[in-house]
Amino acid sequence: MSEKLSILETFENQYPERDYNIVHVAPEFTSVCPKTGMPDFATLTLEYIPNQLCVELKSLKLYYGSYRNDGIYYESVTNKIADDLIKVTQPRYLKLTANFAVRGGISSVITVEYKA
Amino acid sequence: MSEKLSILETFENQYPERDYNIVHVAPEFTSVCPKTGMPDFATLTLEYIPNQLCVELKSLKLYYGSYRNDGIYYESVTNKIADDLIKVTQPRYLKLTANFAVRGGISSVITVEYKA
Amino acid sequence: MSEKLSILETFENQYPERDYNIVHVAPEFTSVCPKTGMPDFATLTLEYIPNQLCVELKSLKLYYGSYRNDGIYYESVTNKIADDLIKVTQPRYLKLTANFAVRGGISSVITVEYKA
Amino acid sequence: MSEKLSILETFENQYPERDYNIVHVAPEFTSVCPKTGMPDFATLTLEYIPNQLCVELKSLKLYYGSYRNDGIYYESVTNKIADDLIKVTQPRYLKLTANFAVRGGISSVITVEYKA
Amino acid sequence: MSEKLSILETFENQYPERDYNIVHVAPEFTSVCPKTGMPDFATLTLEYIPNQLCVELKSLKLYYGSYRNDGIYYESVTNKIADDLIKVTQPRYLKLTANFAVRGGISSVITVEYKA
Amino acid sequence: MSEKLSILETFENQYPERDYNIVHVAPEFTSVCPKTGMPDFATLTLEYIPNQLCVELKSLKLYYGSYRNDGIYYESVTNKIADDLIKVTQPRYLKLTANFAVRGGISSVITVEYKA
Amino acid sequence: MSEKLSILETFENQYPERDYNIVHVAPEFTSVCPKTGMPDFATLTLEYIPNQLCVELKSLKLYYGSYRNDGIYYESVTNKIADDLIKVTQPRYLKLTANFAVRGGISSVITVEYKA
Amino acid sequence: MSEKLSILETFENQYPERDYNIVHVAPEFTSVCPKTGMPDFATLTLEYIPNQLCVELKSLKLYYGSYRNDGIYYESVTNKIADDLIKVTQPRYLKLTANFAVRGGISSVITVEYKA
Amino acid sequence: MSEKLSILETFENQYPERDYNIVHVAPEFTSVCPKTGMPDFATLTLEYIPNQLCVELKSLKLYYGSYRNDGIYYESVTNKIADDLIKVTQPRYLKLTANFAVRGGISSVITVEYKA
Amino acid sequence: MSEKLSILETFENQYPERDYNIVHVAPEFTSVCPKTGMPDFATLTLEYIPNQLCVELKSLKLYYGSYRNDGIYYESVTNKIADDLIKVTQPRYLKLTANFAVRGGISSVITVEYKA
Repeated sequence: MSEKLSILETFENQYPERDYNIVHVAPEFTSVCPKTGMPDFATLTLEYIPNQLCVELKSLKLYYGSYRNDGIYYESVTNKIADDLIKVTQPRYLKLTANFAVRGGISSVITVEYKA
Repeated sequence: MSEKLSILETFENQYPERDYNIVHVAPEFTSVCPKTGMPDFATLTLEYIPNQLCVELKSLKLYYGSYRNDGIYYESVTNKIADDLIKVTQPRYLKLTANFAVRGGISSVITVEYKA
Repeated sequence: MSEKLSILETFENQYPERDYNIVHVAPEFTSVCPKTGMPDFATLTLEYIPNQLCVELKSLKLYYGSYRNDGIYYESVTNKIADDLIKVTQPRYLKLTANFAVRGGISSVITVEYKA
Repeated sequence: MSEKLSILETFENQYPERDYNIVHVAPEFTSVCPKTGMPDFATLTLEYIPNQLCVELKSLKLYYGSYRNDGIYYESVTNKIADDLIKVTQPRYLKLTANFAVRGGISSVITVEYKA
Repeated sequence: MSEKLSILETFENQYPERDYNIVHVAPEFTSVCPKTGMPDFATLTLEYIPNQLCVELKSLKLYYGSYRNDGIYYESVTNKIADDLIKVTQPRYLKLTANFAVRGGISSVITVEYKA
Repeated sequence: MSEKLSILETFENQYPERDYNIVHVAPEFTSVCPKTGMPDFATLTLEYIPNQLCVELKSLKLYYGSYRNDGIYYESVTNKIADDLIKVTQPRYLKLTANFAVRGGISSVITVEYKA
Repeated sequence: MSEKLSILETFENQYPERDYNIVHVAPEFTSVCPKTGMPDFATLTLEYIPNQLCVELKSLKLYYGSYRNDGIYYESVTNKIADDLIKVTQPRYLKLTANFAVRGGISSVITVEYKA
Repeated sequence: MSEKLSILETFENQYPERDYNIVHVAPEFTSVCPKTGMPDFATLTLEYIPNQLCVELKSLKLYYGSYRNDGIYYESVTNKIADDLIKVTQPRYLKLTANFAVRGGISSVITVEYKA
Repeated sequence: MSEKLSILETFENQYPERDYNIVHVAPEFTSVCPKTGMPDFATLTLEYIPNQLCVELKSLKLYYGSYRNDGIYYESVTNKIADDLIKVTQPRYLKLTANFAVRGGISSVITVEYKA
Repeated sequence: MSEKLSILETFENQYPERDYNIVHVAPEFTSVCPKTGMPDFATLTLEYIPNQLCVELKSLKLYYGSYRNDGIYYESVTNKIADDLIKVTQPRYLKLTANFAVRGGISSVITVEYKA
């Protein structure tokens, strides 16, 4: 999984003296259910206050795309992605919300929050 | 009713060191009004912060489904389900919201909240 | 199944000399999938032009409710209900649309149309 | 009931040489169910092409309001109002749609159409 | 007006040891403007935390319906209904919101809040 | 009223050999009720197929604005504006829809259609 | 401008011992831009907690209507109306929100808040 | 590609004597852009009138899922799927609409229609 | 302007024997008003039935983008783009709808339709 | 870039003794991606509490428009505009939210907040 981390690129925050908020909404996340082998679909909403580094948008898209054929549970994938983004960007604050489409008549939302 | 409890399955929370939020929205809950014998319909929204255990999604669906032909009041069924989920998953926090469809021109929402 | 038919009651159309349209939208239909045993949920929209008879609203509710624990496929239940309503009310025109909730990531709509 | 008719006032159509369309949407219609004595609520949408006469808006409001405590069925009230409006305004075309709020989990729409 | 109070029925709260929330939304409230004699329409949203008693839903519907032909101002009817519900159910918390339909191009919302 | 006509300006249609459709939606129309003196508000939707002339947009805005303090009925103002636009632009087709805001609990839509 | 103040009428608050909330939403406010002479359109939302006096609804409508042909800026009209309403009703709390329609591709909202 | 065809299963239409309509909406279709290698996302809406055979819902889901890692253009995939469904179910009528998510600021919809 | 035409690229229609429909919705079109120099914004919806050629999506984006700093009227730009697309793809059918954002309180829609 | 600053004009706040809120929503902002040269589109929401100066609305439109052909990143343009507005109006409070349209399947929101 360490190769996933290397997909994420950053650029230098030009306004580190100010706390400001960045949100990226990605409605096209998909991975695979490890139990049934069936695809899962989610909207990922990343919100963070950058410290010295911002996540580069295209690399974020590719990073998300790298889960396309991975078998991984809702709770795990949300925590894992949050951990990777925290590791790479070292933000002052980060919240990742994964809004999964209906399975068995139930939709699910997993939210992970981090404060430096 | 103790057999209902046995339907609920759990799996180990892989990130117990972090407080994070899980929401499951189930728009297909139905039970029966004990007074009129007519079916009731509700959307159940379960929100919780897991401690050591998460509720398994398919077992949650089956557990909800077990009320299909039970005669039980709005207030009772909401409190009862919250109690069962608290007993089985021992969460740090749990909120259950039951949004019942219109009866007699009135729709109803019952909300139970729990903090460990 | 013939006992279902007997649930449906009618009343005399007071304006048979005029073609007019009646729609009843029932968002709380539920039956059971004969293959998986899991509940199905649908919104049934009945539209018809009455001839001599109108369907009585409360009996329609009870008739729909009688499918609650029946195992029956989407296509069958829609055609069967349309047939029963045609038999009982002998309408000049009837359309029944059954809008089934998401299963396996796919929602379905079955529509049956009848002209006298 | 003939006193209801006298509530409806008209004014002369200033553009009788042209077919044009008038719609009045009244979301605050209420009458009483003759069977249960419980109030019914509907949105009435009147659409017509005037001939020599237009219906005066305030009198239409009062006419609708006169049903407030009348016990009358969905189908009857819709046909009755359409008949009264046709009698009083003698339109080239008229359509009355009554969209009744949910009763017993079912909402209903009755539509009467008339061509001169 | 004391006869109105007698319409409201209660049942015993089965979970008095827990603060939980009950909401009843009634979009079909109607009374009469005491000044103009014209009908008013409102959606009443009752939210409360029960103590020993819950308000019975059908009696609530009938209680609301008893205002149908009463001439009473927006502010008065909202405060009066809140007072009656407080008197009868002695709740830990209660909020009543009355959302009145447009009159003279202006819609109005009156909100009364109570804490035991 | 003839001075109103002079407000409307046109420009030459650059594509007269082709039937194409132009729609201008103006949600800020206001005039005055001749009976009550109270302001009326409407959304005017003009749709037309130009022949040799198109209506200039800013002049259309000023023309609509010229009704601001005129006392005029729904049906009259809609027919009058349609007539003026037909006179000035001589279109192949024109439809004017005036969607008036709620008065006395009733909203109204007047539609005038013209074919050359 | 002092004549505007005299349009506003009040009635006595029947429940002065209780803090409760009144909201009046008026989507049909219009005045004139003092710079361009073009009409401005806004939705005015008045929220207040009455002390001894409530603003009478019809007089509020007339008061708003009195700005119809006044040339006045967004910020001024919002503060001016709030001041007038505070002067006349002496409320415990008041908030006035003016939501102006798009001008030059930009819509604007001005909000004034007052606490006694 | 012929192995894709074998995924699709059918069941016998129980009402072949009647023309009725079946719609399956699948908002979770994903394939890969053959030019950029980036994933595409679409909602597929299949509408058909069955002849002797209906498409089995679970097999349809698996069939759609089989395109997950295929590189294929919008126009090709829509026509190809329509062709496969026509071949397997031999319907009286079929329409397939593929609604693709935004790429380069542009969203696309491809619609293929077939009549027997 | 002929250089604009050269931006548009095509690819061969793989299914020329079938009439099928392609829609591209581009909500990010912008050009400049030739009179005021101010930017205009529109959503362009292109719908066509291809003959031998389809328009390549990225080239369409670039073609639309080439108008960014051009001064051109609503009616002209819509007809001009339709003409260019007809010239380059020679479709069996084409409709271009340009939905322009509010200017002076009025939004506009221009629609050009072509049949081979 | 200092010439941009000179576009912004102010007028004197007539109510400096009161903290009140001004919001300007501009859905038609566009600049250019410095990496790809492709246009970006955003809705800018400016919220501020004025001190002695308010920003003049037309100059704000022109100031926003001056970025039309500038190559600048999401994060930079949002911080830069906020800085300019703070410099020119010296507000008590200011928040600028830039809601950028989808790029690579991801939409982004940048929010900068300032307190005097």
